[in-house]
Amino acid sequence: MARVIVDVMLKPEILDPQGQAITRALPRLGFSGVADVRQGKRFEVELDGPADEAAISDVRKMAETLLANTVIEDFTVRVED
Amino acid sequence: MARVIVDVMLKPEILDPQGQAITRALPRLGFSGVADVRQGKRFEVELDGPADEAAISDVRKMAETLLANTVIEDFTVRVED
Repeated sequence: MARVIVDVMLKPEILDPQGQAITRALPRLGFSGVADVRQGKRFEVELDGPADEAAISDVRKMAETLLANTVIEDFTVRVED
Repeated sequence: MARVIVDVMLKPEILDPQGQAITRALPRLGFSGVADVRQGKRFEVELDGPADEAAISDVRKMAETLLANTVIEDFTVRVED
């Protein structure tokens, strides 16, 4: 069993209201020194078999069609060590 | 400017309905070989200064108080290469 991580983040040019709300809340809560926060999604995909090239390619297709909205989001796929 | 990543995932013993919905949808969509999917959150925190020990410790406090609900969620903090 291998674990593949899919990270999905809004594209840089897309406004992120959740991240902005966090960024603005931080000074009120006593945290300084943070320029920006962006919020995205993280998926942990447990495979039945090994994380070979075919499996990774499948997960990439999965991310494209199901996990990310590629109009507004970018995603990365990586095998967890 | 340094970027610190905070990953927030439901604790393993907490039910993840979103992840379960994805796991169940996959075979219908033609994807096989996935045992489980869990969904969490990923935060990209841009610091004004370097990611030194004090800054990382601040981000950890931020994660504990604001980004994660530590009753049901675990989080990890790491500096992006």
